[in-house]
Amino acid sequence: MTAVRPAADEAVEPAGHALAPLFRPASIAVVGASASPGKAGYAMVQALRGFPGVLHPVNPRGGEVLGRPAIGSLREAPGTDLAVLVVPPDVVPGALEDAAAAGVRAAVVCAGGFAESGPEGARLQERALAVARAGGIRLLGPNTSGFMNPVDRATANFMPAVADLLPGTVGVVAQSGGINLAIAFLLARAGVGLRLGVGLGNAADVSFADVLDFLAADERTTAVGLHVEGVADGRALVTAVRRTVARKPVVAFCVGRSDVSAFARSHTGAMAGSWALTRAALEQAGAVVVDGLDDLVAALAVLRAVRVPAAREVGVGLVTGQAGPGLVVADALGARGIVLPALAPTTRERLAGLLPPLTYQANPVDTGRPTETFPAVVEAVAADPAIDVVGVFALDEPGALEPSAAARGATAGAGAAGRVVFATGGPDAALADRRRALDALGVPLLTSPGALATGLAAVVADARARAVRDVVPEPATAAVPTQPAGPARSIGRTLDEHEAKTLLAGYGLRTPRRVVADDRAAAHAALAALGGPVVVKVLDARVLHKSDVGGVHVGVRDPAALDAALDAIDAIEVPGDGGAEAGERRRYLLEELAPAGVELIVGALRDAVFGPVVLLGLGGVAAELAGPPVLRLAPLSPERALEMVDALPSAVLAGFRGAPAVDRPALAAVLRAIGTLVSEHDDVAEVDCNPVRLTADGPLVLDALVMTGRTEERHGGV
Amino acid sequence: MTAVRPAADEAVEPAGHALAPLFRPASIAVVGASASPGKAGYAMVQALRGFPGVLHPVNPRGGEVLGRPAIGSLREAPGTDLAVLVVPPDVVPGALEDAAAAGVRAAVVCAGGFAESGPEGARLQERALAVARAGGIRLLGPNTSGFMNPVDRATANFMPAVADLLPGTVGVVAQSGGINLAIAFLLARAGVGLRLGVGLGNAADVSFADVLDFLAADERTTAVGLHVEGVADGRALVTAVRRTVARKPVVAFCVGRSDVSAFARSHTGAMAGSWALTRAALEQAGAVVVDGLDDLVAALAVLRAVRVPAAREVGVGLVTGQAGPGLVVADALGARGIVLPALAPTTRERLAGLLPPLTYQANPVDTGRPTETFPAVVEAVAADPAIDVVGVFALDEPGALEPSAAARGATAGAGAAGRVVFATGGPDAALADRRRALDALGVPLLTSPGALATGLAAVVADARARAVRDVVPEPATAAVPTQPAGPARSIGRTLDEHEAKTLLAGYGLRTPRRVVADDRAAAHAALAALGGPVVVKVLDARVLHKSDVGGVHVGVRDPAALDAALDAIDAIEVPGDGGAEAGERRRYLLEELAPAGVELIVGALRDAVFGPVVLLGLGGVAAELAGPPVLRLAPLSPERALEMVDALPSAVLAGFRGAPAVDRPALAAVLRAIGTLVSEHDDVAEVDCNPVRLTADGPLVLDALVMTGRTEERHGGV
Repeated sequence: MTAVRPAADEAVEPAGHALAPLFRPASIAVVGASASPGKAGYAMVQALRGFPGVLHPVNPRGGEVLGRPAIGSLREAPGTDLAVLVVPPDVVPGALEDAAAAGVRAAVVCAGGFAESGPEGARLQERALAVARAGGIRLLGPNTSGFMNPVDRATANFMPAVADLLPGTVGVVAQSGGINLAIAFLLARAGVGLRLGVGLGNAADVSFADVLDFLAADERTTAVGLHVEGVADGRALVTAVRRTVARKPVVAFCVGRSDVSAFARSHTGAMAGSWALTRAALEQAGAVVVDGLDDLVAALAVLRAVRVPAAREVGVGLVTGQAGPGLVVADALGARGIVLPALAPTTRERLAGLLPPLTYQANPVDTGRPTETFPAVVEAVAADPAIDVVGVFALDEPGALEPSAAARGATAGAGAAGRVVFATGGPDAALADRRRALDALGVPLLTSPGALATGLAAVVADARARAVRDVVPEPATAAVPTQPAGPARSIGRTLDEHEAKTLLAGYGLRTPRRVVADDRAAAHAALAALGGPVVVKVLDARVLHKSDVGGVHVGVRDPAALDAALDAIDAIEVPGDGGAEAGERRRYLLEELAPAGVELIVGALRDAVFGPVVLLGLGGVAAELAGPPVLRLAPLSPERALEMVDALPSAVLAGFRGAPAVDRPALAAVLRAIGTLVSEHDDVAEVDCNPVRLTADGPLVLDALVMTGRTEERHGGV
Repeated sequence: MTAVRPAADEAVEPAGHALAPLFRPASIAVVGASASPGKAGYAMVQALRGFPGVLHPVNPRGGEVLGRPAIGSLREAPGTDLAVLVVPPDVVPGALEDAAAAGVRAAVVCAGGFAESGPEGARLQERALAVARAGGIRLLGPNTSGFMNPVDRATANFMPAVADLLPGTVGVVAQSGGINLAIAFLLARAGVGLRLGVGLGNAADVSFADVLDFLAADERTTAVGLHVEGVADGRALVTAVRRTVARKPVVAFCVGRSDVSAFARSHTGAMAGSWALTRAALEQAGAVVVDGLDDLVAALAVLRAVRVPAAREVGVGLVTGQAGPGLVVADALGARGIVLPALAPTTRERLAGLLPPLTYQANPVDTGRPTETFPAVVEAVAADPAIDVVGVFALDEPGALEPSAAARGATAGAGAAGRVVFATGGPDAALADRRRALDALGVPLLTSPGALATGLAAVVADARARAVRDVVPEPATAAVPTQPAGPARSIGRTLDEHEAKTLLAGYGLRTPRRVVADDRAAAHAALAALGGPVVVKVLDARVLHKSDVGGVHVGVRDPAALDAALDAIDAIEVPGDGGAEAGERRRYLLEELAPAGVELIVGALRDAVFGPVVLLGLGGVAAELAGPPVLRLAPLSPERALEMVDALPSAVLAGFRGAPAVDRPALAAVLRAIGTLVSEHDDVAEVDCNPVRLTADGPLVLDALVMTGRTEERHGGV
């Protein structure tokens, strides 16, 4: 067992956790156990060969499986904690009934052929779930290879090779049983021990949130990795991740980057794809989100042992035994926006005393060929007040460098333990020796410059993610109404632009001065009342693309121009409108012209998986070039709203198109207000403020749409 | 030795290659050999312990080193091929004189303290180089750990652990001796054998180009990896890469992504940073450019054995034994723009006969748990007419899948050999067995879904890079003058806008109708002659930022407006101008207004390292959002110019800001013309056509600047 951040010898998770009988059973029965090598029912018993508790193969034909006598039925082993079902799908509900009758408390269902295979399988899954629930059985699967718990030698997985995994402190929750295995092998190859690896499969009962709660409570677990393909209950996942992050780091890898099919729901929906939203939600919950399994493993290898306090800025120190690899690490960190801070003069003085004259003694610190002063160099950098975590790269050079001595020196310094990450290159056999020695000190050892950069970046991301509080306090400004968490209200129907702006104004947003005109005479009176040039628009909630159909006329100055604009608006064909002869009349909205400014899109939508979401992006062509909008789950805390603003491209924040720098607090207040609006009204499907213009007097909503209804029913969008 | 793409048993590189005495010596002398463990002169002899040729430790004090008697001087071993100098820097020139006197043909100089350490070291390096050149000695270094040649057991490196590296077919040329070692260890960890690994160090003599030429000619080498921090002669590197790529794949990793210090030379120079240019140049030369050492290793692991014919589109097939990892691979490929093509109906029929009904049988093909039909599935996908290369992922499951059997089936199919890449997960010991079996078939084995995606993407990138011809044929259109490769001409001085546009017009570029006015009367006459609204500009090569100082007036329609514009222009303060009292007068340029259109920046610059470069980008804010411009070395072939256009963001190509789609051939012709201009004039430092407007009548150069002089001398730019 790896000693990285060693846990107490005794199991310390809360006794009686609901999933303890599943993942830490005292007794296991394998239903469908087989004496034929190659069958899953044989492999499962083989995987459990080291299980120290009671293990019953179950086979109605009796006999022996791998030297253990089979019992004919679960009923012969009453009170068994865990039943592992390696039987065909149609037999599963009956087997679960037997298990319930025998008092079994948890089950793993390996078979496929359930919800993933079509409606018939979905019904079978419902039946199985109903039996399990009625019998008080927690069910993992179906359609999973199982789980691995090398610490307690309870590995119920039909891939027997995983029974010999290195025990350790990393928990893994994978949507796919195959990925759970792939991660386990990658961790083992990286020398990182596993606490528990779970493949959820169809997740009929035991979900991401359930396993996360188990791992959060389990003091043997020091870091958790997630593999997410798509989730049913996004808010439950987010809540569970947030609870876990409060205790230990979570690293997540989301599949679906290149799948655009879910992206095309409506104009803004098209930009808010589920992959982007899942990533954003996990980051908001405090997870470190990575782009692949190799990065997941490097991040877990480090975060299981190294975590620094929550902070927006984290100081990374870098010490290198060879300039070339040091440059590669610094470059990779820089490309992720991580700038190495300057070292204090006192540190520089210490380094000058430790290193030959021509070495680079800034940050990174290049020692030249590592000598016996190397540990002191690492310790000096770790002790610098600007430094929170130190990365060290040095090739394994017997005689010149003994990495664990270097780490011992560094971690001996006050507060340096748990703040040093090593990486090296060398023959595999040497690396295994080094890793053992470093593990005992709680220092992770990685095996490439790239992995070191990934691991250090994960430490920074974990600290940054926790630095933004995500609670919703009482509103601090008058711009937000005083019932942010009030009971859900309803809008009732999709609003026209005037109604939408009136609603938004009630949340403190600024809109242009405007007059609704129900007929032409009223429009002319409005022009006179507003004075100067105005914008004339069609006012009808059914007209979504007003500009496209000639429904927006800018800079109307006189009655003649107004009549021309009204003529154009009257000529618009509105779906479901009977026309003038049916007594329908156009209504008009006249608004004063807005001052100049940069235009952004601010919106909200109610996602089927994650609920209310706030969106911030650039308009038009800029959006195409700048990439996807910023997405965050609503409601937004003041800090979160500011963080969301800061996620805009720096070219925009600094002053887009010659404009002054963005007024961050004012824009953040707009985001909060829209987040509160969508959170407070349970039938609002989408809010689009497109554009919001950042004028010298503050953000101004120039156009607004508030739509009700289910997102899936809409097409074409705004 | 790995058998991946086995070379002939006998060495087959051209006899007498200039670097053969260096990298494949028959005899070696280690000057500075030491009997003290821990010293570099001891480590070097230790690293050469397996050398099958003649090996002399050289030490004036005599004695024995690792059981070998030391000779007192190189002169005692006349005719030695290679002298490895492990001596202090100041002794190096003298040692080289001894070597020259003894007829030594090549030397490795390990010591630092030369050009990298300052002017004094640079002088020392010059002296050493002069001695070597006079004596006919090729010199590797100084400031390098040396090289490794495990195939010929000639490893001259002061890191003895690398003497036991797995021999193989991958060549590596690293700028840094430390990176050369790091790559060697990463290759070994990935089970990939090394043909030759070279750390160039200061590259006083032996350069990237020299080693590339050696590896290109060496038939034992099947793929080459490069690590580039910065080069002195970019064109020589590009030429050597191009020559090598014609015979075998080259993969390159460039450091410097996050270093922006070199980026800030001038307005366009700032965008054409040396890192971006080095990457672009290497890609143009046909190299596969990757973002880190781990990706370099994965790409080399595959490309050493798998190469498909040059093509813009490469069909990737994917077969997976587990859906989860298959999704990860497909997603990672999709994120790199690699779409898996549909399989032919006949292939689908074959698969339907091989797989259970509920498996996914498109591309990717998910076999469910792999069975004995797995090899036939791989073979069927490989045989599909749309498929050029097949990636396979399957967890190592003893009993269920034997990967080499699967590969044997696949590679047995006509033309399938060298077209299959495997990846798996499993215990390390099992992977080593699998790798041996697959190596014998010429099938690479990777160990993560991410590495498989990286390797397949490298196969695609290698094929695509070779699909664009980069020669410059005789001009095909009248838009390009008929002497593209004519002798270099000179411009003589920085041109004013009118002169620049006249020069560009001579290369076939369209410019607005314009009149130069030497005084106000001439300006008024020009307004009358041009008719309608005009643009009035200051005409002075010394005014770089015309708009910023009030030197550009758009839409001037009448004499009064013209006078106002001329007043503003007369008020401009020009550096070095004596003013009106000194007899200096402003000159004016009047131009007709151009039709609407998308605006791009097209330019050229003469880079100190890479020579003439053509640049294509978006203007203003769009550039900040869309990222850096496209860079290519000039002159441009017609295919290269089109490829350069196609590298613009797709949102721009498809029709930016509501404009029609970009006229690709017309824009490509502009790029070619500017590339020819800068290539033909050896004193042109920079050409800026900013903007080039894409009008309905074709591209129109609205402003132009042609600057002479050395790039380094300019500041502030256009």
